[in-house]
Amino acid sequence: MTTPSLTLYSHRSGPNPYKVAIILDELSLPYNTVFIEMDGSQKASPYIDLCPNGRMPALVDHSNNDYTIWESGAIILYIVSKYDTEHKISFSKEMDDELTGQALQWLMFQMSGQGPYWGQAVWFSRYHPGDKIPSAIERYTKEIRRVLGVIDLELRRGNKEWLVGGKCSYADLSFVPWNLYTETYFEGTAVDGWREELPYAAAWHSRLMERPAVKVNKERREAAIAAGAPAK
Amino acid sequence: MTTPSLTLYSHRSGPNPYKVAIILDELSLPYNTVFIEMDGSQKASPYIDLCPNGRMPALVDHSNNDYTIWESGAIILYIVSKYDTEHKISFSKEMDDELTGQALQWLMFQMSGQGPYWGQAVWFSRYHPGDKIPSAIERYTKEIRRVLGVIDLELRRGNKEWLVGGKCSYADLSFVPWNLYTETYFEGTAVDGWREELPYAAAWHSRLMERPAVKVNKERREAAIAAGAPAK
Repeated sequence: MTTPSLTLYSHRSGPNPYKVAIILDELSLPYNTVFIEMDGSQKASPYIDLCPNGRMPALVDHSNNDYTIWESGAIILYIVSKYDTEHKISFSKEMDDELTGQALQWLMFQMSGQGPYWGQAVWFSRYHPGDKIPSAIERYTKEIRRVLGVIDLELRRGNKEWLVGGKCSYADLSFVPWNLYTETYFEGTAVDGWREELPYAAAWHSRLMERPAVKVNKERREAAIAAGAPAK
Repeated sequence: MTTPSLTLYSHRSGPNPYKVAIILDELSLPYNTVFIEMDGSQKASPYIDLCPNGRMPALVDHSNNDYTIWESGAIILYIVSKYDTEHKISFSKEMDDELTGQALQWLMFQMSGQGPYWGQAVWFSRYHPGDKIPSAIERYTKEIRRVLGVIDLELRRGNKEWLVGGKCSYADLSFVPWNLYTETYFEGTAVDGWREELPYAAAWHSRLMERPAVKVNKERREAAIAAGAPAK
């Protein structure tokens, strides 16, 4: 494999760009990071020309005719299918491969079932202006607990350490950045006690936190927040 | 291609199972539908043994050793990569193919950016118990308008009829079931006037509504709701 030339358009503290950074670092791929501020820059040229969604991350692969892709889940699939040729954290690049299908299933669950709901829980817990709305906080923190329960059930009934194929893959790693909020943001809600009541999910999360690529990106994000980036 | 033997675990009125049904019907694939009620059945055996998430849809492919997959986005990718061998509504099954990457990007946007937020808008507009919460309704209906604006921008600046590769693909079709709510559920909100202000997105939606597989599934769902299935 030739060494690629990649630019990751990121945000200093947003969880979704760190999903992609973790994958790049797991594969020891070199990349240049460009931080976009959420001050309107993300909705204006030149960024909007790359990504009509006006959200980060986006990836440009200069070694592949400046191929451009956005949505963290799609970026991850591009990276592993093109550059994880030894299948360190992925499986076949053919979508009808059995293990690839399972990994896609869990990645879709992360994209549709984890990220959006953790995001709503953060919004209503921390950023909603004016009075707190207990029914909204309850709705989304209960959903966090439910989603962690699905992961716990899957690992428990298979007596598994990882979601797919007996190894740590992008299916597991994709859950890390949003799950970092689980322990620090939702005290006094339905999330309390999740580690004790969902021990398989808790052990899985702890295993993920020991990965060097996870550690380095957690430190980078915490440093960015300490330096003034918004915590969400 | 041999004719597969498929069972789709569905819900009579939920939008996500109809995403998969539309894809199966676009490809003229035969399938058996099993409706699961949301009365606790979806969280109990035998369904939970197939799908630890306890949500519909799930697919079992009896012609492939009862291969089981859930999450509508992952099911769609399994179906097209295994059975759309002529690429009627898909591209290569290899994820690092250029057009496949673009289609994955838009499918991820549907999964993470459309479904969850339309769902929250429906919840707070129709089903939230007690007093309405204007800030929540505003948050989610504004997001619907924003997401439709992203699609409009993409089609407008490329002067395109379809999102990827010059043909109607699963990337477009996946947006249909949730977008059916757009015109009927959110009167008096930020969604009002979207057709006039986002003409590329509106024309795209109208083109999708003319597809026979879309029409037949819209009729099936409306009949199920008329027969007593909940409207969401």
